[in-house]
Amino acid sequence: MTFTTPSSPYGIHRVIEPLGVLPQGAWKIDNTMEITDNEILIDVSALNIDAASFTQIKQEANGDEAKVAEIVKGIVEKRGKHHNPVTGSGGMLIGTILEIGSALAGKIDLKVGDKIATLVSLSLTPLRIDEIVKIHMQKDQIEIKGKAILFETGLYAKLPEDIDEKMALAILDVAGAPAQTARLVKEGDTVVVIGGGGKSGTLCVYEAKKRAGKNGCVIGVSPFEKDCQRMKDLGWADHTLQVDATNALALMEAVSNVTNGAMADLVINCVNIQNTEMGSILSTKQHGKIYFFSMATSFTAAALGAEGVGKDVEMIVGNGYATGHAEHSLALLRESETLRKLFTELYV
Amino acid sequence: MTFTTPSSPYGIHRVIEPLGVLPQGAWKIDNTMEITDNEILIDVSALNIDAASFTQIKQEANGDEAKVAEIVKGIVEKRGKHHNPVTGSGGMLIGTILEIGSALAGKIDLKVGDKIATLVSLSLTPLRIDEIVKIHMQKDQIEIKGKAILFETGLYAKLPEDIDEKMALAILDVAGAPAQTARLVKEGDTVVVIGGGGKSGTLCVYEAKKRAGKNGCVIGVSPFEKDCQRMKDLGWADHTLQVDATNALALMEAVSNVTNGAMADLVINCVNIQNTEMGSILSTKQHGKIYFFSMATSFTAAALGAEGVGKDVEMIVGNGYATGHAEHSLALLRESETLRKLFTELYV
Ligand SMILES: NC(=O)c1ccc[n+]([C@@H]2O[C@H](COP(=O)([O-])OP(=O)(O)OC[C@H]3O[C@@H](n4cnc5c(N)ncnc54)[C@H](OP(=O)(O)O)[C@@H]3O)[C@@H](O)[C@H]2O)c1
Ligand SMILES: NC(=O)c1ccc[n+]([C@@H]2O[C@H](COP(=O)([O-])OP(=O)(O)OC[C@H]3O[C@@H](n4cnc5c(N)ncnc54)[C@H](OP(=O)(O)O)[C@@H]3O)[C@@H](O)[C@H]2O)c1
Repeated sequence: MTFTTPSSPYGIHRVIEPLGVLPQGAWKIDNTMEITDNEILIDVSALNIDAASFTQIKQEANGDEAKVAEIVKGIVEKRGKHHNPVTGSGGMLIGTILEIGSALAGKIDLKVGDKIATLVSLSLTPLRIDEIVKIHMQKDQIEIKGKAILFETGLYAKLPEDIDEKMALAILDVAGAPAQTARLVKEGDTVVVIGGGGKSGTLCVYEAKKRAGKNGCVIGVSPFEKDCQRMKDLGWADHTLQVDATNALALMEAVSNVTNGAMADLVINCVNIQNTEMGSILSTKQHGKIYFFSMATSFTAAALGAEGVGKDVEMIVGNGYATGHAEHSLALLRESETLRKLFTELYV
Repeated sequence: MTFTTPSSPYGIHRVIEPLGVLPQGAWKIDNTMEITDNEILIDVSALNIDAASFTQIKQEANGDEAKVAEIVKGIVEKRGKHHNPVTGSGGMLIGTILEIGSALAGKIDLKVGDKIATLVSLSLTPLRIDEIVKIHMQKDQIEIKGKAILFETGLYAKLPEDIDEKMALAILDVAGAPAQTARLVKEGDTVVVIGGGGKSGTLCVYEAKKRAGKNGCVIGVSPFEKDCQRMKDLGWADHTLQVDATNALALMEAVSNVTNGAMADLVINCVNIQNTEMGSILSTKQHGKIYFFSMATSFTAAALGAEGVGKDVEMIVGNGYATGHAEHSLALLRESETLRKLFTELYV
């Protein structure tokens, strides 16, 4: 392996500016759709825009669909990738393999024509949008005609036969969250899932209840009645709290109420908006843990916020990758009919 | 305890905008130096500006001392606290207790006239600067005349008799780093300390070697010859690598060289500059850990960077607080004559 140009396994050869960084850190990358011998060319059918990013874009567009299309195209034209400059986040895509570089062909388990989802962020993936076919405003998904490139080190998952493409796209986008939940939750734990009515939040509530067991306590939080109602209907949360997580004290008091002041062993933050670090910190007990899956998390707000209130908690950055996370998340749809039904309603 | 106005233990009653958040999250807080019954008034003698913040301010001032003074005063005038709007970080202060609110007097181990260091960030501490007495450009310290307020939940440490004030100010600012290092490093570990020649970095190298033991391997990283020479002279690092951590591939290759490709069990990031997330990630082995103490860390760059290269690593947000961290850091100066001599040279 050579790590630099002409064909770095990390895609460094695609970086236009600033030189010397990796594609994720770059402001602009080269999205010419001619591959080097260690790249893979994908015919893209749909993008799943990261929820924090899509929320920001919809706000900027005042909910106007045409304006969303313009912003999305503008980002890709400017940066060669769908890397939202405000939130710093990306998303992922599904598509069909068009071409495999000669240095990789035959050595990997992909062939031309295979359908895959990328498991690396759009924030580092060379992308060209030729046409926006349809924007699904409530699903964070955009059908497009376009192409993308996967680097040699880029992870992917072949789309399974038994799961609808759109559903796979939706669930694989947040596959890291339930996989990390499975690692972090211990039997008997009290777990708070902030944004528990959302996509990743629902998976985390489900997985947390499975791990915490009947002696554990899973608490779902959302400011919206419909989300709370959904959590109740699904039945995996022991408590649902209708609270705005940006109101740190209100959240702390609500969690205190249902835990008799004991607070949470683990808080999982799955929101799509800013300013929920403090609410997460105050809901956690001393020596507890917080898993920040939300891409709207501010590093300094978390670090200095915990210090400011003397909370000795371990705060974990939501790494989008965990070994086996794609298989793990798809397996959830296979083991729970209820989960599959919900994701079918929402994303298919 | 009531958690809201007129006298919240968290200082919410001081928030001017936006209302509803805690002081750390606020843009502006009230720095009127009249205390409520649960606040403590401090006569401030010196500020220790957070290294990431001071680096940014010095750059903005082009190294000009008068301009640094102007920026520092400007921040406090605009926000009522020394909360750098670019880096999001603060620092801490030392001073003498002037007044203790009636609800606290007699109930805490402080009396008027005690000398203390605050252990909560300046990013949430009401502060008024009356005069800048002296700026120590190389020590991140500013002697001032001014006042500050500590909230009921605000942590502090009484300044010890046997340690010089300036040295205590310097070491207490980064007390969280060696305390977390002590928790994270196990016997036999390979530990990389990025920015190992700096203030927190030196303490982390020392603590890491103590914990990793003779079967462990501690690697210090700095792009500067003088820092590397200092690490060699101190003798706690098994290897010193003169590499710029913003060059992710160069750092990865250097760490690979000295570990025979095994990479680090733990990377501790103590730099004062941006764009070192990727270097940290690539230096860590699969299933290793990264402790981001640096306030210049970007949450999304860490989360998406690790995903982008398929690294299943646990990334921890550097909480400034850990139980007993102040005592722990001061004890290091007492147990190591070498450390004390170095900190005396640098900060007294
Ligand atoms: N770490 C990673 O690698 C990674 C990967 C993918 C996604 N993410 C991040 O994970 C987060 C969740 O993604 P997702 O796809 O699950 O998003 P989602 O489906 O939009 O879920 C977010 C949930 O938070 C709720 N919410 C909004 N405001 C809230 C508030 N004030 N208090 C409590 N809950 C609130 C939302 O309610 P409404 O929908 O009703 O507004 C929604 O249910 C996003 O920040 C995304 O960027 C991270
Ligand atoms: N989490 C918390 O609660 C908390 C509390 C306090 C401080 N901090 C943060 O911790 C970090 C370190 O603080 P500190 O007081 O120890 O700062 P410091 O003494 O300035 O140390 C930073 C070190 O990094 C070195 N460095 C600069 N550029 C580098 C590069 N490209 N590669 C490798 N090393 C490089 C610096 O070298 P030169 O000095 O020679 O440039 C210096 O030795 C800062 O980011 C600070 O904000 C966090």
